[in-house]
Amino acid sequence: MQNMQVDINCDMGESFGAYTIGNDEAMMRHITSANIACGYHAGDPMVMERTVRLALEHGVQLGSHPGYPDLLGFGRRVMDLSPSEVESYTLYQLGALWAFAKANKAEVRHIKAHGALGNVAFVNAEIARAIARAAARFSKELILIALANTPLVEAGMEMGLKVALEAYPERTYNADGTLRSRKLPGASIHDPQVAVERAIRMVRDGEVVAYDGEIVKMRADTLCIHGDNPAAPQIAAALVEALKSAGVKIRPMAEFL
Amino acid sequence: MQNMQVDINCDMGESFGAYTIGNDEAMMRHITSANIACGYHAGDPMVMERTVRLALEHGVQLGSHPGYPDLLGFGRRVMDLSPSEVESYTLYQLGALWAFAKANKAEVRHIKAHGALGNVAFVNAEIARAIARAAARFSKELILIALANTPLVEAGMEMGLKVALEAYPERTYNADGTLRSRKLPGASIHDPQVAVERAIRMVRDGEVVAYDGEIVKMRADTLCIHGDNPAAPQIAAALVEALKSAGVKIRPMAEFL
Amino acid sequence: MQNMQVDINCDMGESFGAYTIGNDEAMMRHITSANIACGYHAGDPMVMERTVRLALEHGVQLGSHPGYPDLLGFGRRVMDLSPSEVESYTLYQLGALWAFAKANKAEVRHIKAHGALGNVAFVNAEIARAIARAAARFSKELILIALANTPLVEAGMEMGLKVALEAYPERTYNADGTLRSRKLPGASIHDPQVAVERAIRMVRDGEVVAYDGEIVKMRADTLCIHGDNPAAPQIAAALVEALKSAGVKIRPMAEFL
Amino acid sequence: MQNMQVDINCDMGESFGAYTIGNDEAMMRHITSANIACGYHAGDPMVMERTVRLALEHGVQLGSHPGYPDLLGFGRRVMDLSPSEVESYTLYQLGALWAFAKANKAEVRHIKAHGALGNVAFVNAEIARAIARAAARFSKELILIALANTPLVEAGMEMGLKVALEAYPERTYNADGTLRSRKLPGASIHDPQVAVERAIRMVRDGEVVAYDGEIVKMRADTLCIHGDNPAAPQIAAALVEALKSAGVKIRPMAEFL
Repeated sequence: MQNMQVDINCDMGESFGAYTIGNDEAMMRHITSANIACGYHAGDPMVMERTVRLALEHGVQLGSHPGYPDLLGFGRRVMDLSPSEVESYTLYQLGALWAFAKANKAEVRHIKAHGALGNVAFVNAEIARAIARAAARFSKELILIALANTPLVEAGMEMGLKVALEAYPERTYNADGTLRSRKLPGASIHDPQVAVERAIRMVRDGEVVAYDGEIVKMRADTLCIHGDNPAAPQIAAALVEALKSAGVKIRPMAEFL
Repeated sequence: MQNMQVDINCDMGESFGAYTIGNDEAMMRHITSANIACGYHAGDPMVMERTVRLALEHGVQLGSHPGYPDLLGFGRRVMDLSPSEVESYTLYQLGALWAFAKANKAEVRHIKAHGALGNVAFVNAEIARAIARAAARFSKELILIALANTPLVEAGMEMGLKVALEAYPERTYNADGTLRSRKLPGASIHDPQVAVERAIRMVRDGEVVAYDGEIVKMRADTLCIHGDNPAAPQIAAALVEALKSAGVKIRPMAEFL
Repeated sequence: MQNMQVDINCDMGESFGAYTIGNDEAMMRHITSANIACGYHAGDPMVMERTVRLALEHGVQLGSHPGYPDLLGFGRRVMDLSPSEVESYTLYQLGALWAFAKANKAEVRHIKAHGALGNVAFVNAEIARAIARAAARFSKELILIALANTPLVEAGMEMGLKVALEAYPERTYNADGTLRSRKLPGASIHDPQVAVERAIRMVRDGEVVAYDGEIVKMRADTLCIHGDNPAAPQIAAALVEALKSAGVKIRPMAEFL
Repeated sequence: MQNMQVDINCDMGESFGAYTIGNDEAMMRHITSANIACGYHAGDPMVMERTVRLALEHGVQLGSHPGYPDLLGFGRRVMDLSPSEVESYTLYQLGALWAFAKANKAEVRHIKAHGALGNVAFVNAEIARAIARAAARFSKELILIALANTPLVEAGMEMGLKVALEAYPERTYNADGTLRSRKLPGASIHDPQVAVERAIRMVRDGEVVAYDGEIVKMRADTLCIHGDNPAAPQIAAALVEALKSAGVKIRPMAEFL
C-alpha cells in the first residue's frame, strides 16, 4: 500500500544577533515543521521569538533543534560530552523554545538534534538515549525526528515517544539505509529534478535506490530539506508541487503519527 | 494588624561548569524560595538540574532568576538593552528553568531579575514592563518579586501578575523606601544580630528605620538573604529561629499571596 | 595650505564561524587601513587569520578593532564597564590580533574602538584613557584613531600615542564638530555623490558643512567608510577615484603621521 | 650522570569573572613556570593581568596555556577541531597573553596545551603539529612543554622549538612512558611523601617506576604540579624542600634548555 502523506521539515532560526543565515521567510511557505535553533549552536532569543511567530503565521509546527554549545562551530564539531551533559543541554534548549511557543499560545511539537549532535545520536546509543530521555521528561507528546535504522529510533521508542522517520531527498544512501558519508564523493544530489523524483519514491513507495544501485526499503514520515542555499526556496516549491501532483498530501506529522 | 508570615528567598544555582559559588546545600535548609540562575549571568544546565532537585528535596519553591547575557561580569554590569531584548532574554531564561522544573514534576513559581537587570528594573519603567510582560506571557500564575515603591511593582500589577514585595534585612534604606546605594558607606548591615532585629520589625510591623533615622512603612512578603559568604548559613539559621520565636511563620509566598 | 593626502579605514573581519558579514575582499582593494575585529564583538581566530592575510595581500595596514564582549549585540550596546575592565579587554584583543600579524610577519599599526565602546570613548574621559593606556602599554608606536574634539584625542596624546583624526563622509555633523546622533533624522548621507564631495572638502580643505549650515573646521587624517551594504565597494571605488582626481594621495596614515 | 636542576610548572589564572579556582598566590611561591589560562577554557583579561603581575612579583616565568573554546567544560572535553582551527585558536590565545606580558615589560617564555587539547596533542600528530606550528609562527624562542614519547615532542622539534619534557610526580606511568589513564584505578599518587620521592628520582636519576613495576627511563625538564586542592601549597613546599635537600636546583627551564 502506498503512503500518501508526508511532513516536510527544515532547519530555521539559525541567525544570530547581527548575523543572518538562511531564508526563513521564503522557506516557511513550503514546509510543515520548523526545527528552530535554541541559542546553543545558533539562534538567539530575539531570533527565536521572530521565528516562532513566522512559523505560526504560516501554520508551520514548532520543533526544538538542540545542538552542542558551540556557536563558533555552528554545532558541526563533535564534542565529547557525557550523556547527562547532553540530557541537561537538551532540556535547557527545549524549555527555552517552549517559552516562546507558550508566549505565542502554541506548542512545541517535535525535537530534532542538530548537526554533529544529531550525527552522534545516529551511532551512539547512550547519547541517543540522553536526547530521548530529555524529550520524554519534558513531554511524552513530543515527536522525535530520527534517521531510520539508528539507535535514536530505538531510544525514542524505549522512552515512549512517537518517532518520525526522516528521509533526505538531497542525500545518497548506503545499502543498509544509512546516509552516505559527506566525506565521500557523491554524498549529495545536486540536480533538483533527481531529488524530487527520489522524494516521491521515498514517500509513496517507501524506497530509495542506494549509491550502489540496490533498492532500500525505508518509511518516510518527514522529508528534510535544506534552506541554506540561494536556490533552496525554488527547490522546495518544486518538491511540494511534484509531491502534490503525485497525489501525496503534505501534512504536519503530528496529524498522522 | 501585624503580619505573621513571610517567605525567605535566596539566589541559588550560580555555579558554572567547574566553578562553584555559594553554599546551596546549606542555604536550602533555611529558605522557602530559590531564585535559580538560568545560564545567562551564571548557572548552566547541569547546575540547574542539580539545583532544582536540591530545592525540591527541601520543599523549596522554584523561581527563575534571569540576568544579563554577561557571564564575564556575573550580570552585575548594566547593559543598554532594548525592552524587546530584555523581554526575549527573560522569556528564554524562564523557559530554560521551566524545563528542569517540568522534568522533575514541579512548577516555576516566581521570577526575580538578577543584579544589574534587577536594579535597572527598579528605576526604568520600560525595562520593568519588559520583564513583567515576559513573565505574564509565560504564565499569569508567576509571582514577580520586586522592591517596594519601584516601577517594577506597577509593571507587575499592570500585567496581571501577583507581586511579592521584597525586603533586605542586611541592607539600609533611604527615607523614600529605596535601598541606600552600595556606593555609599553604610549600605550594608554587618552585624547579624542587627539584621535579625530589622527582619522581625520589617515582617511583623511592616517598617524599617531608614539610614537618616526616619521610620519607613513597608510591607515585606519575602525577605532576601545572601548565600555568598561563609557565615551565610549560620546567619540564615539565626534569622529563621528569631522570626519563629517572634511568632512569624516562614512560608512559601505562593501560600499567602 | 591644503592637505593632499589621506588614509581610508574600514571595519573588516566581522564574520564569525559560519556567519558572514561584509564584503572584505571587495573593500580591501579601496582602503589603506583595516580595523580588524578581535573576537569580542565579532570575528574569530579563523576569520582573523584570513583577514590579516587578505589585508597584507592588498598592502593594507593592520589595525585592532576592540569591542565590548557582546557577540550577541555585535558590540553596539553600551556596557557599564570599569576603566580597568576596558583596559584589560583592550589589551587582550590587541594581543590576539598581534599574534596573527606576527605569524604573518607584519605589524599591528593602529587601534580603533568599535561601536558602542568607541562612542563611549568619545564622551567619557576615563574610558578614553583606559583605551589609550592599553594601547600605550602595548606599543607607543600604535596610532590611535579618534574623532576630533573628543576626550579620546586628548587621552591618546596624554599617553604619548600618535592620534589620527577621523572623518565620516557618509555622516552629518553638529556645529561643534561632533557627529549628528543616529537617533535624529538626517544623520547619514545617502547620496554617494554628496558623500564624495564632502570627503574631498574634508581632506583638502579641512572643513565640513554642518547640519545647520555652519562651516566646521576639522583635520581629516583618515576617512572612515562602511563595508556593510551591497553598494559599499562601488561607493568606495568612486570615492578613491574622486579623491585622486582632486589631487589627493591615498596613503596609509603611518606614512604621514 | 645525574641531572641536578629542574623547572616546576603549574596551571595558573584559571579564575573567571566572579568565579575563583585555585590558590595562585600560595602556589606562585613554589614554582618557576606559570601556565596561564587565556580566556578560552578559563581565565579572562582581568585575571590574566593579575596573574601576570603575580608571576612577575615572584620571578616566575610566563607561559601560555591555550585550551578548547569551552568555558562550560573547562577545556576538559575533546572537541573535534581541524588542525587549522587548533592552530588559529592557539595563536589567538598566545597573542592575548603576550599583550599582558608586554604591557608588564615581560616575555611569554613557554606554551603548554590545556586539558583535553593537551591530551589530544599527545596522541594525534596533526593536532600536535598545529599547536607547535602556531607556537613557532609566534616565536621560535618559545619552549613547548610536552610529555615524553608523544607526537607533540616530535612536532615541537620539527618546527624548530625547544621542547621541555614534563613529568608528573603525582601520576602513575605505563611501561612505555605514557601516563596511566585516569579512567583506571591507581592513576594518581595520593601520598605526598611518595610523590616527593618519585619527583626526586624522576629529576635526579631520570627514571620512574611504572605501575607494573618496571623501571622507565625518562628525562624530566619540568615537573607539573597541581594547585587545585587545598593541600596543594603545602605539597608544593614539601616537594621543593625535598628536591633542594637532594641537591637539585629549582630553576626556570629557559635557563638550562
